[in-house]
Parts: sequence; C-alpha cells; structure tokens
Amino acid sequence: MSLIVVGSMAFDAIETPFGKSDKIIGGAATYIAWSASNFCQPINQISVVGGDFPQEELDMLMQRGVMMEGVQIKKDEKSFFWSGRYHMDMNTRDTLETQLNVLGDFKPVVPESYQDCEFLMLGNLAPSVQLDVIDQLQNRPKLVVMDTMNFWMESAMDDLKKVLEKVDVLMVNDSEARELSHEYSLVKAARKITEMGPQYVIIKKGEHGALIFHEDKVFFAPALPLEEVFDPTGAGDTFAGGFIGHLARTKDISFENMKTGIIIGSVMASFCVEKFGTERLKELTREDIDKRLTQFQELVNFEIELV
Amino acid sequence: MSLIVVGSMAFDAIETPFGKSDKIIGGAATYIAWSASNFCQPINQISVVGGDFPQEELDMLMQRGVMMEGVQIKKDEKSFFWSGRYHMDMNTRDTLETQLNVLGDFKPVVPESYQDCEFLMLGNLAPSVQLDVIDQLQNRPKLVVMDTMNFWMESAMDDLKKVLEKVDVLMVNDSEARELSHEYSLVKAARKITEMGPQYVIIKKGEHGALIFHEDKVFFAPALPLEEVFDPTGAGDTFAGGFIGHLARTKDISFENMKTGIIIGSVMASFCVEKFGTERLKELTREDIDKRLTQFQELVNFEIELV
Repeated sequence: MSLIVVGSMAFDAIETPFGKSDKIIGGAATYIAWSASNFCQPINQISVVGGDFPQEELDMLMQRGVMMEGVQIKKDEKSFFWSGRYHMDMNTRDTLETQLNVLGDFKPVVPESYQDCEFLMLGNLAPSVQLDVIDQLQNRPKLVVMDTMNFWMESAMDDLKKVLEKVDVLMVNDSEARELSHEYSLVKAARKITEMGPQYVIIKKGEHGALIFHEDKVFFAPALPLEEVFDPTGAGDTFAGGFIGHLARTKDISFENMKTGIIIGSVMASFCVEKFGTERLKELTREDIDKRLTQFQELVNFEIELV
Repeated sequence: MSLIVVGSMAFDAIETPFGKSDKIIGGAATYIAWSASNFCQPINQISVVGGDFPQEELDMLMQRGVMMEGVQIKKDEKSFFWSGRYHMDMNTRDTLETQLNVLGDFKPVVPESYQDCEFLMLGNLAPSVQLDVIDQLQNRPKLVVMDTMNFWMESAMDDLKKVLEKVDVLMVNDSEARELSHEYSLVKAARKITEMGPQYVIIKKGEHGALIFHEDKVFFAPALPLEEVFDPTGAGDTFAGGFIGHLARTKDISFENMKTGIIIGSVMASFCVEKFGTERLKELTREDIDKRLTQFQELVNFEIELV
C-alpha cells in the first residue's frame, strides 16, 4: 500500500465560460492525494508550500492519511500560484498568470520514513525535480508513474528525456503526446514514446476519455457524459490519483489491472469537474464512487454474439 | 429483414493532409448500402443519379442485394458532386465545391415493391425529400432512423422539424447536435432533441466515438484507435449502415440491441476510413468484421469488483 506522491500544492484562480473562482486551493499533488486517498493510505506526500498555505487544508489531508513529513513549509515565502481561463470547449485553456514562488527553487527531500515505497507517482513538475526524487530512493519502486506537460517539452527536454528513461508509465494529454512524439496519430505517438522509456503510455483526452497503450494492446476508458462540466482544473491529476491509488491498493501492476485503474481514474475525474477546485472531491463517499463505477459499466460494457 | 435506404449516390473529390483522390464514387446511400448489406439483404435503395454514374457501380451493389427499382437514372443529367478538404485533425473539413445536379429537383418515388418495409434509413438529404418518402409509405415502418446535417438546420429548419416529429432515431455529429439544440453539453442537447420527436439520439464524434441517448440512459461506443485515418468521407454513413443493418437483421429495436448496433456501426466506420471512398468496404469479409468486433470488445470491456 505504500505510495509516494510528488507534485505542487498551490493556489489557483480559474475562469470558465460559466463562472469564476476566487483564489482557491489547487496543485497536482493536492488533487492526486484527495483522489488516491479513497483507495490507499497512507500517502507519502512530497511538495513545498509557502506560509500562506492554509494549515486547515494540510490538516484535512492528514485526516485522509496523507503524510506531511516530505512537505516543506517555507513560512516567509508564497505558494505557487496559477490562474487560467478555459475556452468554451473546456478542453483548452489560456494561462493568465503564473507565479512560481516556492516552486522556483524547490529541492525535494525524501524523508527516511518514505523509503521502500512500492509506488511512486510523479505529478507534473520540473523534470529535474522528478529526477531528484527518483535518485533519492534507495530501492527502485515497483512502479513509477509520471505526469508532465508541454511546458517542459519546450523548456527542459533533456531533463525530461532522462526522467522518461526511468519511469514505467507516462501519463500525458493528447496534444502533449503529439508534441513529444512528433506523431499526429495517437497509436504512433504511443509507440514512439514507448521507445523513450515508459512501457505503458496513458493518453488523456479530457471529455473524450483516456487510452492506455502497452506493447500491441490498447484499452479505452470513456469520460462520463455530464450535463455540466463546471471546472476541469485538476481533472487530470484526479485521474492520476484514482489510477495510482487503485494500483497501490491492489499491488497488481498487470495490464489488466491498469485497465481497471484508468476506469477508476475516469470515475474520479468525473467528480472533480462537477465543482470548482477540490470541493467535490472533499465531499465524496465510498457509495458515490461505487455508484459511478456502475454507471461506467453501463456506459461501455456490451455483449455481442458474432453472427 | 426489409430495409429502405434513402440518400445520395454521387461523386466526391477529396483532399486530406495525406493525399488527394480523383473524382470517386460517394454519396450517403452508397456508403449506407455497402455497409448495411453485410448484415441484411435485400436493401431497397431510393436515390437519383445522372447518366455519368458508372453502371458497374450499380451492378456491384446489386450483387450485394441492393435493389435499384427506386434509383432514378437521369441519362441526360449529371450526378451530385461534392469536393472537400480535410483539416489535420480529420474531424473538420471545408467544402470546396458542391454541384447539386440531379439532386436539385429530386422527387423520390417509393416503388410498390418497397411498401411494408419494417426499417427506414433516411440518409442525409433535403428534409423535404425525407418527408416525401415517409409520406409515400402506406404503413409506418417499425423504426425510422434519420441522418441530417447543419446545412439543413440553416436553410430548411421548418421542414427539418417536420421530419424530426416523424422519426424514432436521429443521428447527427456533435456540432450538429449543438446547433440543433442550442445546448453545448451533449447530455442537454440530446434531451432537447428528444423533445423535438426522436426518442433515441445518436451523437457521432468522429475519432472520439459515438453516444446513444434514450430516456435517462446513455451508452458509448469508442472509435478504434487507428495508426492512420486515410479518408473520413462516408464514415458517418458507413456507421449508419452498420447500425441499421444490424437492427434490420435482428428485428430487435430495444435499447440493448441499439447498443450493439452502434458498436457495429463503429466497427464498419473504422474500416471505411482506412482507404479512399468505398474502396475498403468493397473488399471486406465477414472474417474481417468479426475480428474487428473482437478488437472493440478488448478495447472497452472491463470487469471490476466494487471494493
């Protein structure tokens, strides 16, 4: 059950065609922890926040079994801040402002108590930071999953390549997969990415679902058709949390079980987008999750007789 | 097993980022017939062509059990012609040229031998023509399925509304569903369309699969991730042919069976895009279809234990 989660814990300000948030709690590792903690505890968190990050947010996560020993609190600095505006399709967005603040010179420290974790989830962060965490681990985890984004492909490709060589699963969205591989077809893109290191490639397509590729196999998890997508921020991280949380709980890293993992990731993401920020994730019950899993089964499972 | 197919039989000239076709055989009813005839024969075709339409194309279809009594051949006129250019995403396209020719004043005539058909597939055509066919039928078919496009929403909305009141299943793509309903969310769009008549709404999303909505139920069929999409022309019509062909073969119009229908539609569409025009559809074997059905099962079916 031992899982390390690395990533930002931060503030976001979000505009969508349907509403606007104040400065709210965000960050990849925040969403991952809220999502994964439904399946697996403890979660060994590695991140950095400023003195402005609310202690009650850390407390709520600790009550969910999220360990804070690896979370640095820099009292005299400010937390990472991002603000963005979503387009009508809710699949694309513009960044309005980025303040790196504490993330600017983040040096992650893996506490001794986190050693020997079997699962490592590298949320989207500078590849050099992701690499630093991998290098600090005395034993290689059973499974290393990594998220990244186009920003690092454009600014830190050499570092990114080094991390890719060391991970088992890469998780990116469709445009990032295309940018990384220089292939338009996602089938070809996944194959090229496999040559860079990760033997499993998960491509997230937002409202159009997610694909996982491994060798010559492919599996597809849909997104639940929703009446309203309120705020897509963190949906990808919430997806990652569901995926890694399920794998860490079951300790089964077969492709079959990864299929279940991306269904669970999609289930969790479908909740995330229903309210601003982590609001919906905080109120979820086990019953809500099970009910939605059943909806996913009804959404895609079919039986067919070959004629 | 009795099925009427109404739609254009025509010429297309297609440009994609990967190639360019000569003037080749196209038209909604052509694709529908090629696709549906794998499942159900005879197919009672209603269309109109000019003297320039190759007799061997009609012969090949007749060998597949496509009846031509309802296909008017206007020897001194030219067939409908469309040319278009696809964008890089292969989901959007620009029309370069449209020559209505024989379609301009098409008056469909339902032959006596077509009466009492149980299934009616109205391919994309002027709503007034679709309505004319419905009105000529002495008994209402068991199931009426209709395809349409944004062009008619902009130019013949009143006629379109009249047809919608008379059909069971509407099949449109995502942008058309949005335009027709004035709703961005596809869930809301489907609900609004249901209020216009059709109790089943199929929304095609190209490479992102297809959804079918009925009452409070929804089912999703993915598109097969392909290495190359060569030419998407006719994919929607081929999908329609697989759907209606399966329903007409099984004579089962339950929602459960419509699920299977949209999977079969997606299977057929996945072949269509692999070559220009109807080329790939002409060479298909039953074995090819069964093999790909199995791929679709592997692509989406999963089992999960609720924990």
